[in-house]
Order: sequence, then C-alpha cells, then structure tokens
Amino acid sequence: MSEPQAPDDALIALAERLADAARAVILRHFRSPVSVDDKPDATPVTVADREAEQTMRALIEEARPDDGIIGEEFGSVRTDADYVWVLDPIDGTKQFITGRPTFGTLIALTHHRQSILGFIDAPGTGERWIGASGRPSLHMERDGTRAEIHTRSCDSPGKAVLCTTSPDMYRGATAQSFRHLKQSVKLPQFGGDCYNYGLLASGFCDIVTDAAMSYYDYAALVPVVEGAGGAMTDWNGKPLGPDSPGQVLALGDPRIQDTVLEILKG
Amino acid sequence: MSEPQAPDDALIALAERLADAARAVILRHFRSPVSVDDKPDATPVTVADREAEQTMRALIEEARPDDGIIGEEFGSVRTDADYVWVLDPIDGTKQFITGRPTFGTLIALTHHRQSILGFIDAPGTGERWIGASGRPSLHMERDGTRAEIHTRSCDSPGKAVLCTTSPDMYRGATAQSFRHLKQSVKLPQFGGDCYNYGLLASGFCDIVTDAAMSYYDYAALVPVVEGAGGAMTDWNGKPLGPDSPGQVLALGDPRIQDTVLEILKG
Repeated sequence: MSEPQAPDDALIALAERLADAARAVILRHFRSPVSVDDKPDATPVTVADREAEQTMRALIEEARPDDGIIGEEFGSVRTDADYVWVLDPIDGTKQFITGRPTFGTLIALTHHRQSILGFIDAPGTGERWIGASGRPSLHMERDGTRAEIHTRSCDSPGKAVLCTTSPDMYRGATAQSFRHLKQSVKLPQFGGDCYNYGLLASGFCDIVTDAAMSYYDYAALVPVVEGAGGAMTDWNGKPLGPDSPGQVLALGDPRIQDTVLEILKG
Repeated sequence: MSEPQAPDDALIALAERLADAARAVILRHFRSPVSVDDKPDATPVTVADREAEQTMRALIEEARPDDGIIGEEFGSVRTDADYVWVLDPIDGTKQFITGRPTFGTLIALTHHRQSILGFIDAPGTGERWIGASGRPSLHMERDGTRAEIHTRSCDSPGKAVLCTTSPDMYRGATAQSFRHLKQSVKLPQFGGDCYNYGLLASGFCDIVTDAAMSYYDYAALVPVVEGAGGAMTDWNGKPLGPDSPGQVLALGDPRIQDTVLEILKG
C-alpha cells in the first residue's frame, strides 16, 4: 500500500467546521425528548442523527462540490471521486438516546480509498480526537486545549485492558473468537463505541475491538489510532477499507499484533 | 418500615462538602499516570480512591464525630451510631483507570440503617445527582445549574431500556435470570456503574440492575432513585439495607416492578 497523502491545513480546517456544526446540532437535541425511529436493522436513529449529517453534507457540497460523500443516514454520492468524505453523525446512538455522554461524531476524509483524515468528536464530553496522515494525533479538551497523544506500551495481551461496545455484537464464529480474546486479557470492559478508540489513542487502554462495523463506523478511527502510534486492521491483520469485513481491531502497541490475531483465530 | 427521617439543610451541606472535596482529589488524578493495585477480590484500587475516602472521612470526623462511617477502602467505625455515612470514593474504578468519565463518588447518610441522603457525584463529567428523603431529587450540571428530576413512564418491560455494568457480574443462577431479563426488554446497554442510576433518575432509561454489589455500592443510589419517582429493591422486591444480597434493581416506573421481579425469578 502506498504512503497516504497528507491532508493540507485547508482540509483539516474544513473537517473542523463539519465537527463544530454537527456538535451544535447534536447538543441542541442531547438529553431533550427525541423521537427514536428503529431502522430496518433495529438500530435507533433520531432527528439529531439526520440533522447533523445534513448539516455536514451541506458544508462539503458548498466547499468541495466534487468530493464524494458516504453517510450513514443519507447514502452515497460520487464515491468514485479522488476524495470521499465518510460520515457517521452519531456513533453510539444507543448511548445518545440514554443520555450517556460518550457517543461521537465520526468524520473521515479518504483519498483513493485510504483514510487520510479522521475526527472523533464527542459533543457530550466536549472532547475531540484528530488524526491526519503525516501528523501526530491530537486530543482536544472541553476548554479547547490541544495536545499530541500517544498510545501506551503493552508487550503482552495478558497485561492488556480490552474495550468493546457490547458482547452481543459478536455472533457465530466471532463470538467464540471474542470469548477467547476476553479470556486472554487482564481486564475487559464493555460500553463505549468510538470513544474507546479515542481512549486507546490517548494511552488509556490497549486493545479495542468491535464487530458488525460499517465503513462509516471505522473510516475515521484509523488515522486517529495510527497517528498516535497504534495499529488498526481487520481480524485478518489487513488494512481497513470500504469493503473490509465488519470486525476491527485497534492496538495501542503494535508489538502484540501477531499474538492477538492468533488468539482471534481460535 | 417507618418513614425515613428527612435530612436537614446542614446535613445536606456537609454531604456537598464531602462531594466537592472528593471531586478535587479525584480530578487531580484522573487521566494522570496512576499506579493500580489489585485488591484480594481482583478489583483495582488507586491512590485516588484512597485519598478521596480519607478526605471525606476527615471531614465527617471533624463535623460529626459521633456518626459512624462505612467506607470501601478503610472499613467501618461506630456502625451502631444513629447516623452512619456510607462512602465509595470511586464507583467504577475500571472506568476511572481507562480514562472514561462516567465513574462516580457515592456518599450516603443512613439513619437507623435507612438511607436518608444519597449523592452520586461524577467528577469526570462535572455532574451530581442528589437524593434526600422528603425532597425531590436534583441533578446538577457541570455549570452548577440544578434542576428537579423525574423518572420516565414505562408500562411494560418490552418497552424498556435496560442498563447494566457488565454481563460478567452475573454468575450462576443470577446469570440465567439476567439473560431472561435482557431478552424481555427493548434495548439492553452495557457499561456505566453508578452513572446508570443517575440516568434512570433523570428519565433516560427504565431499568438498571447490577449484581455482586456491596452496601457502599448501592446505599447512596436509593434516595436518588426514589426521590425521582423510581423504585429500588433487591431481586426479591425487598428494601435495600446493609445486609441485602448483592443483586439490586432500579425501576423508573414502579408499575412494572411485579412483572420484572417475576422475570428475574425465571
């Protein structure tokens, strides 16, 4: 795989505007009575999801009308463009509708199908994680303070803190693999969605895995994790792309990658 | 059971001082490198847990030296006093050590073994839930705004959002009961510790249950949940006290109590 193109300041500034705009929309709805629809796949969706994605799409259409867009709620346009934005307005809608602040907005920019820019914005906590190819990843505090972040060292799965959203996302063979991994680590923890990947990038946990993930669920996570020194692949150790299977693995310390992939094979 | 005594303003003010002091200690350590010890029961404990409890105990000893104290980290004194404080400096230490903000400090005041005052303080999010017998429960925002809170209506388990910390806390017969309950609700969600009970009191979820709970894990939750209109008992529907078994059940809408208790019986 070729070295990904480094995004310039203007692209990063546009992504910041998307994140700011989505955050404003989402905070208007957070912990307010919202009507929840169940999509055909039984995941809940709210007016906040829809408005936030529409707001981001409008900003992209205005600033860069030739770019493609793939969004969770409103589908795809121009996916053969050089640059394609991949948007998940609220990752962790179940957390959002229960008033839990650790949901996030995911914004990725891909160039020739490689993620070159990734934002995890957490309106509920006021945090933001920013990853961009060729730059160290950043964490922004509620007060706007930004700092470079680095994953932490962990030389064995037996010393690892593992985070995953829910054991229920693992079905069939992946359930067996996940159980195996869970038994191999020091401390498993449930809950979190995209917030877990931010915590890993910031050096607070060692392994994050999730299954049943769509492209918009992981496209933005890759630059954040990699720019902090971690590794992110599918369960076969392959780079993540639009057509990856739904199981993703993030490691703070890439030295344990082979061992963890072996464990997942059963 | 007799009507619990209503705490006066001075007692509530003292509890506020405890919560403020513990919060200051905890925020000094949150997301800083902390050394984590494993206690005999394999739960992690940090210097933040210990310092926060010591700080609260010192304030109680100074203000009300005749009161009893039961704390997670430093044991019990004067438990036969009329008034006994029950303290868990960090409920959700696993969340705390992974940088997740939804852990909490639990402060209860009991009178003749009944909880008459309960605080759930969440230093990581800046929130606080306050319950006091005879008064409506309050939620305090990060900016200090306080508002009365009320649980929401839910007339059937099939419409309920269920929150629990982890499926792994249910062992033996309780695992079977929990699976049964999980299959009966609309949406189960994992993660959270005491924060879940705050969310229930604020009307964002309908059922919270946990197992393997100690007195200091639930003593503070009862006044918060009851003062918001909810119900809180053990899995037999009995009021919670110092000697309750470790399975607790909080319901936003007490109308579903009989049905939920039946489901838990299998």
